[in-house]
Amino acid sequence: PKRALRVAAAMEILHTYSLIHDDLPCMDDDDTRRGKPTCHKEYDETTAVLAGDAMLTACFEVLADSETHADANVRVELVSLFAKSAGAAGMVGGQMIDMLSEQTGEDMDQGALARLQRKKTGSLFSACCEAAVLLNGSTREEHHRLASYARNLGLAFQMIDDVLDEVGDRETLGKTPGKDREADKATFASLLGVEGAKRQAEFLCTQAIEYLSIFGDRSHYLKLLARFVVARGH
Amino acid sequence: PKRALRVAAAMEILHTYSLIHDDLPCMDDDDTRRGKPTCHKEYDETTAVLAGDAMLTACFEVLADSETHADANVRVELVSLFAKSAGAAGMVGGQMIDMLSEQTGEDMDQGALARLQRKKTGSLFSACCEAAVLLNGSTREEHHRLASYARNLGLAFQMIDDVLDEVGDRETLGKTPGKDREADKATFASLLGVEGAKRQAEFLCTQAIEYLSIFGDRSHYLKLLARFVVARGH
Repeated sequence: PKRALRVAAAMEILHTYSLIHDDLPCMDDDDTRRGKPTCHKEYDETTAVLAGDAMLTACFEVLADSETHADANVRVELVSLFAKSAGAAGMVGGQMIDMLSEQTGEDMDQGALARLQRKKTGSLFSACCEAAVLLNGSTREEHHRLASYARNLGLAFQMIDDVLDEVGDRETLGKTPGKDREADKATFASLLGVEGAKRQAEFLCTQAIEYLSIFGDRSHYLKLLARFVVARGH
Repeated sequence: PKRALRVAAAMEILHTYSLIHDDLPCMDDDDTRRGKPTCHKEYDETTAVLAGDAMLTACFEVLADSETHADANVRVELVSLFAKSAGAAGMVGGQMIDMLSEQTGEDMDQGALARLQRKKTGSLFSACCEAAVLLNGSTREEHHRLASYARNLGLAFQMIDDVLDEVGDRETLGKTPGKDREADKATFASLLGVEGAKRQAEFLCTQAIEYLSIFGDRSHYLKLLARFVVARGH
């Protein structure tokens, strides 16, 4: 549990860095996050850029520390995994494509949007599951199933997120709703409709849960998580 | 040499990320770097933030890759070293203190400025030397001497940088001179005078070179580097 907690902490640090930078005026320009002022609103832009930089760096410091795992091979694999998922080929790359498509106003179809979101949101979901594989030395079959679970879950999460941006209010969301619509951005809700996106998300979560069948009770929380993703949309 | 080159590349990626973010409007707000438009001028702020984020992440990906060193213990030590030097206790922390002192307009004496610069610039100089120690498995005595060399060199570099900000022109500097003076910032040049800062830098570099005495010809380039730092000021 201690190893898992440290890796989870590293992921949470990484995730928070990405939120702080994403909220910056030159990015999504958000004033509210989790019902509170965003970092650059509470402090200033300088602080927000540096806080994000410090957290991204701290994530790797936590992973590399011998407290995280006795075997240096596992630690260095975790560093690799997190770096690949978060970097130009993963999350940051997805964010860049997203920003560019907003600037050019190019239309995106469902396939392009799914590919974009797989990088932007999906890669961190996958990294969490792959980290568990690295920590536990799972079999190839288990690895494949966890990766598939994560891929479906990540996409479903983004669909519900798009739905909530359409129909949610500031209080439940903890952030400003309707921003994507105002920016005329392609979202799963705009492409599939609110009900269509919900149905698709439910289908993906059911699939995700089916991938977990071989794990039995060990996957209890992962199943709960998949149900929670869908429940958010109601 | 291949190992050293990969570690050097990782450091250069890390260094470039720090320059791109430091040049942002909310930080030092610079239009020119190495005689060319800064990243956010050539592209935009969004691109500059994301390019920096991607490079910081890529630095750790390069270090963690098995091509960098066959021994995972060495790779993970390199990740730790770079993360500690670049993070809140090192470079980013130094930049934050620098920004805060500018905002509050507090006077800094030479000791406080040296402590600040040790974090902000010195930590990456030290990390380069410590990385060499990790790659080569040096003795404790060699380690101590290289660390002392780096500490002196980093401080001397910053002193000459402050001198050049006072007396340099845009063409030789590749960036806008006189910015610190305009912002009424405490620099080694403002605290010691241009000539005083130059003398102090020369003294530090002579000391740095003395620490290298036990290495003989192996330290040829490190000695050259120390002389180069001083020569920049003339």
